[in-house]
Amino acid sequence: MALRSILGTMCLGNRAACCRFHLHPPHAPVRHASCQSRSGFKPERVAVVTKTTRYEFEQQRYRYAGLSEEDLKQLLALKGSSYSGLLERHNIHTSNVEHVVRSLEREGIEVQVVKRGAYSEEVVRWADAIISAGGDGTMLLVASKVLSKDKPVVGVNTDPERSEGHLCLPVRYTRAFPEALDKLCRGEFRWLWRQRIRLHLGGTGINPTPVDLHEQQLSLEQHSQAHRSDSQQRSGALHQSVSTPSLLPVRGLNEIFIGESLSSRASYYEISVEDGPWEKQKSSGLSICTGTGSKAWSYNINKLSEQAVEEVLKIGRSQAGVDVPLSPEFIERVTDQYNESLVFSPDDRRLLFSIREPIVNRVFSSSRQRGFASKSVRATRSGSVRRTVLTGRSVLSGCVCALGAGTPAWWWTGGPPLSSTTEPSLQSARVRRTS
Amino acid sequence: MALRSILGTMCLGNRAACCRFHLHPPHAPVRHASCQSRSGFKPERVAVVTKTTRYEFEQQRYRYAGLSEEDLKQLLALKGSSYSGLLERHNIHTSNVEHVVRSLEREGIEVQVVKRGAYSEEVVRWADAIISAGGDGTMLLVASKVLSKDKPVVGVNTDPERSEGHLCLPVRYTRAFPEALDKLCRGEFRWLWRQRIRLHLGGTGINPTPVDLHEQQLSLEQHSQAHRSDSQQRSGALHQSVSTPSLLPVRGLNEIFIGESLSSRASYYEISVEDGPWEKQKSSGLSICTGTGSKAWSYNINKLSEQAVEEVLKIGRSQAGVDVPLSPEFIERVTDQYNESLVFSPDDRRLLFSIREPIVNRVFSSSRQRGFASKSVRATRSGSVRRTVLTGRSVLSGCVCALGAGTPAWWWTGGPPLSSTTEPSLQSARVRRTS
Repeated sequence: MALRSILGTMCLGNRAACCRFHLHPPHAPVRHASCQSRSGFKPERVAVVTKTTRYEFEQQRYRYAGLSEEDLKQLLALKGSSYSGLLERHNIHTSNVEHVVRSLEREGIEVQVVKRGAYSEEVVRWADAIISAGGDGTMLLVASKVLSKDKPVVGVNTDPERSEGHLCLPVRYTRAFPEALDKLCRGEFRWLWRQRIRLHLGGTGINPTPVDLHEQQLSLEQHSQAHRSDSQQRSGALHQSVSTPSLLPVRGLNEIFIGESLSSRASYYEISVEDGPWEKQKSSGLSICTGTGSKAWSYNINKLSEQAVEEVLKIGRSQAGVDVPLSPEFIERVTDQYNESLVFSPDDRRLLFSIREPIVNRVFSSSRQRGFASKSVRATRSGSVRRTVLTGRSVLSGCVCALGAGTPAWWWTGGPPLSSTTEPSLQSARVRRTS
Repeated sequence: MALRSILGTMCLGNRAACCRFHLHPPHAPVRHASCQSRSGFKPERVAVVTKTTRYEFEQQRYRYAGLSEEDLKQLLALKGSSYSGLLERHNIHTSNVEHVVRSLEREGIEVQVVKRGAYSEEVVRWADAIISAGGDGTMLLVASKVLSKDKPVVGVNTDPERSEGHLCLPVRYTRAFPEALDKLCRGEFRWLWRQRIRLHLGGTGINPTPVDLHEQQLSLEQHSQAHRSDSQQRSGALHQSVSTPSLLPVRGLNEIFIGESLSSRASYYEISVEDGPWEKQKSSGLSICTGTGSKAWSYNINKLSEQAVEEVLKIGRSQAGVDVPLSPEFIERVTDQYNESLVFSPDDRRLLFSIREPIVNRVFSSSRQRGFASKSVRATRSGSVRRTVLTGRSVLSGCVCALGAGTPAWWWTGGPPLSSTTEPSLQSARVRRTS
């Protein structure tokens, strides 16, 4: 499964050329969505895509290394993990998946259960609706392969005690799934429109081996495999020509990250916003996110701590020679307002780009550390070959590509139209608690 | 050479346990340094450690792939690099190295020229002084293996037109090296004391294969090699016990970065500052730097753009209901003062830690996003095995280790005692130009 899951997703390059982000032609507005929601929704075929639990992952990996279940227990203990703990989480996930499947079947819906590593375009074609049974990572993967805006995606958090699952249904529906299903069939829900990112990719040496890094626990064998395929393919690189940009068979629900795959390495590239002048960049990468993504990594790239805000205000106060009291509450209010301004709506068709940790010197400039793009952002990269990859928290090879707010994913929420139960609550908590 | 350079440096683990940073017993103060500088310095044996030029690197890599020099030209063209350009930079480097070597020999000094990949403890033992012939990356590597505070390290920037070389001698000495040598012998220089970081490392599954990531151009074969050795070794993991913390045979001149090697992955760890309470962290890693490092990556992690400062001041102004004009000059002054406060002296024995892009939620807190440690910082990591590595811009495996301001490196500058010609000028430029 570990190896299958590498092969399960997208294919990226490892050569440099140019990448382009642009907006997709406008889609049906929210009104369209809300009127749809009046009529209920009753799928005939539902695919349930399940995450790989940590227990399954460790088990596969140690089997791969030829070790027994008993060895696994000892190894997990060695690195401070509890075998029984992992098994317990695994069983909770499994029983929640079974509950969802039974509830669907009881409604006469045909169900296909698919491991995330086996999740494919065929599964998407077959299904009228897709249920992601896991956490946000699984949801990002599921959403990435749904190209039509008419195919609903529903997230069920199968480990509600341990994971946040901002993109999933409210956790109460994990155990009360039939109730969610009723509301869906009776139309007692609203569609939540989320813009996604389209990615056109080109350049030389496009890597034929897709690498799935969605899972936190990507195995070293997977890395090794990816690097080997990559270096093998280099020897044949001479016979590769520059390919024209082609649309990847995936959509980014949260963000695309362009940069080195190795966190210790700086990225060299040029960007052009709204077809403006090209600007050389040396930074820890470039992030482009949707409204959905604006609450996640992009938020953490751009948010300020109360510590920083307090220091800025103190300096400003002394430089201006004014006497404004800076109480902890005041600092917190300013910090909250600043950080909240970094978040925008999932149905907003703009993209937010962020130059991450820009290095500014005589060669590299950074006129804007972040900004919105309503028309296009282009990025280009040339020079030495570097290993980069694309994931939900995406790292993209230097290459010809286009990235834009693409077809929206359809979501639904149990709860009244104004309910924001599927909206992440973590972010506001972060804003309040960051310091 | 590419492969030799992997084996040339440090050895790190890939299992989780605990790491500890503490300050080293105080060393001779600056007074000691300055009085030393009165008496000249005349080494008998000097090792000249040379960087791997981009030309050499590409050549090795394509030879590795069984390609000819002609193939190399075509491949470089394909990815937008110029063969003749690389060759020109290579020749400039080579002639500068020859100039340095001849100048030393003319003074009757015994010289050993060593490629960075072949730079070893034996070379350090043999030499009275070591010259790094390259840029800052080469200098960081050279300094990392000099454990004694009595062995001078001198940086010569061998590509003065193209690279900044903040840690190297003023660029004019690249071509006028005999002049620098005279000053050294006549004592017309001052020792520049730079604190370094000591690293104790332990835990299970310490990776026996050292990986050198100093070079920007680390090859995919090197990654692959590293990952393979790592996964091979896992199968034997059961027979490994938790090793007690041991001091690595390297010193960090700039910083240590603890986090995932994959830039797209979040790091889970706990830290304790000055033996205080443990705090769970989920972030894009943890940076610990010296004063030298405070001008580099750590600076870019913590610095604010004028864009951000302006927004904070505007919010603060409206929240406080005061009417302060926010001119571009004012914004720039505040930004400069804030960013300059992030930089501290190379001889300062404190460490600056920074939680990079902290994620704050109900599980993970971040009471301080950054702070100084004068006594100790400890970091611990448990749970799933992740692949991490240590470099000049360091990524460290979850493991038992201790990190502290260690033995200082001795430096000298051509120029009068108060000259700051070896001090980075880039940083202030960044401060001015960041926005």
